[in-house]
Amino acid sequence: MSILDSRPSRTELSELGEFGLIDRLTTDIQPSLSSTIKGIGDDAAVLDYGGKLILITKDLLNEGVHFDLSYTPLRHLGYKAAVVNFSDIYAMNGQPRQMVVGISVSNRFSVEALEEFYDGLKMACNKYGVDLVGGDTTSSRGGFFISITVIGEVERDKVVYRSGARPNDLICVSGDLGAAYMGLLVLEREKKAFLANPAVQPELEGNDYVLERQLKPEARRDVIRLLNDAGIVPTSMIDISDGLASELLHICKQSGTGCAVYEEKIPIDPATLLLCEEFKIIPSIAALNGGEDYELLFTVPLSEYEKIKGLPGISVIGHITEASEGKYLITNDRKQIPLQAQGWNHMRS
Amino acid sequence: MSILDSRPSRTELSELGEFGLIDRLTTDIQPSLSSTIKGIGDDAAVLDYGGKLILITKDLLNEGVHFDLSYTPLRHLGYKAAVVNFSDIYAMNGQPRQMVVGISVSNRFSVEALEEFYDGLKMACNKYGVDLVGGDTTSSRGGFFISITVIGEVERDKVVYRSGARPNDLICVSGDLGAAYMGLLVLEREKKAFLANPAVQPELEGNDYVLERQLKPEARRDVIRLLNDAGIVPTSMIDISDGLASELLHICKQSGTGCAVYEEKIPIDPATLLLCEEFKIIPSIAALNGGEDYELLFTVPLSEYEKIKGLPGISVIGHITEASEGKYLITNDRKQIPLQAQGWNHMRS
Repeated sequence: MSILDSRPSRTELSELGEFGLIDRLTTDIQPSLSSTIKGIGDDAAVLDYGGKLILITKDLLNEGVHFDLSYTPLRHLGYKAAVVNFSDIYAMNGQPRQMVVGISVSNRFSVEALEEFYDGLKMACNKYGVDLVGGDTTSSRGGFFISITVIGEVERDKVVYRSGARPNDLICVSGDLGAAYMGLLVLEREKKAFLANPAVQPELEGNDYVLERQLKPEARRDVIRLLNDAGIVPTSMIDISDGLASELLHICKQSGTGCAVYEEKIPIDPATLLLCEEFKIIPSIAALNGGEDYELLFTVPLSEYEKIKGLPGISVIGHITEASEGKYLITNDRKQIPLQAQGWNHMRS
Repeated sequence: MSILDSRPSRTELSELGEFGLIDRLTTDIQPSLSSTIKGIGDDAAVLDYGGKLILITKDLLNEGVHFDLSYTPLRHLGYKAAVVNFSDIYAMNGQPRQMVVGISVSNRFSVEALEEFYDGLKMACNKYGVDLVGGDTTSSRGGFFISITVIGEVERDKVVYRSGARPNDLICVSGDLGAAYMGLLVLEREKKAFLANPAVQPELEGNDYVLERQLKPEARRDVIRLLNDAGIVPTSMIDISDGLASELLHICKQSGTGCAVYEEKIPIDPATLLLCEEFKIIPSIAALNGGEDYELLFTVPLSEYEKIKGLPGISVIGHITEASEGKYLITNDRKQIPLQAQGWNHMRS
């Protein structure tokens, strides 16, 4: 009687990975309404209902896959769950305005625990000027599932897609990369130590920066404002949730270009560098494949170089090339290495 | 180290139930933006971005709580998951336009199984004229979680809330009630028989109507059109997902009114009546508490009686009263019974 039996053929999810699966499921989907400006395939969908353009984004976060409650305070989880969606809206050069929240929880959670989660959501909404306007709360048979949709707005002539990068454009990134990943490694290490010996106190001191980057990230509203004040509209933009390499490949794929990125230009915080030494990880690997930095990766025409180089906290890390030139990392010893996405491909793990 | 330990106090989710929990979590949330017309507390949030009003709804469906894959074909599940959200948009007197889909699945599912689910989503989108514009697909550690957000639109002067019912308004309902619940009972009975003896073939014949109401419901776009063509704008409206009683209580609570509903007026299909006899269930109980009918429950001013009584498939089942008069069902033997919501309160089960 089970409909899971007797399939004519069976392709495992692990054969496709997350992006391959999404491509396959959505391959023949074409928007047909005039109000749909951009459907699947960017940080947010773009809709036109006659006023400003409307942006819609959705992210799922699942216990045991995206977060581990043994070291994630629920208030931080709520904050992060909201902020990562705001980040998607900023990546379209927009402003987040409303949020809808769905949570499914087992009865292992108390009302007070969910109130802490909601406190985090509300803190994020207050800080970023977003209204929490609705949602759904249901029970699950196990675990904690979060689904958040954020609605944003953007002026018609300011919306930025992943697909607008052109050869010779400068590749820019905000802030620094790799810290959230090192924060995760510290937390995982202390969890293992705790499980081996519950009397041991976790050694988290001195790692405030990377822990905050992992547990309580911020979305780069300030960068959008900075660019706007400088009169710069990026040609393409994406937020860094899956690691620099994965996001660069998205921009190149959708823009039909190649790219060259210089290892020495990738911004990495001293605290991240120290931990990379401790964990014996090449810092640029943490930046390229670590993920969860929620910085903005964007491209601007070469003609904007003078403007961009004066902006605080923005690094130019390379340039866009013709597709035929490939997608490369140029290492500190001048080797060309093809960029590969490893990132957070949960489907493969 | 676990943040689930050492809470100062612990209130179990079961003490509040689903609606009580939502009330408690959202009690102090007030929209602050001028673009937020209506936040939490209706079938959809209502936003104003300068053109038509925008409607946003979200529903979660969880395996083992909202659906049972041992008798739910994935194509039907996809169809239903989309349609129940469209129904929320129609309940605001709007039109669904775009859909965003989030799914979390364990690797127990194959790519082909998810394609069937997506086929159902696409069928529903085609039928109702909705664009699938984005989503998120992640892995879960167990089970199948669906989160769907639908964006709709409505003319400024046509939006209908739950809160507009006034004393003497007529209470109307589309179609018939209780069938989806009887369909569920048939499916559960055959599942039990199958588990007891897998050689037994399920006896589903003759129950097509109730099974279709359970497995592949439709949203009442036609009713919205009918009302519009007749020049009727309801004073309040809600779709029936949790059972007639629960939805009536929502309308009364948000409108600050009472109500009187007549058992003899509740529309019930002959197929439903027959099965109620077989299962020894009072038909009005199936209608009041069964849920998942996805019919529209609405109120109109008494002055519209002449118009409403001529509309096919619309039943007038009672009237709105002053809050002080209470919320009652008047039974066939003229007893007044206080209405109680039982519906799909998963948190209590």
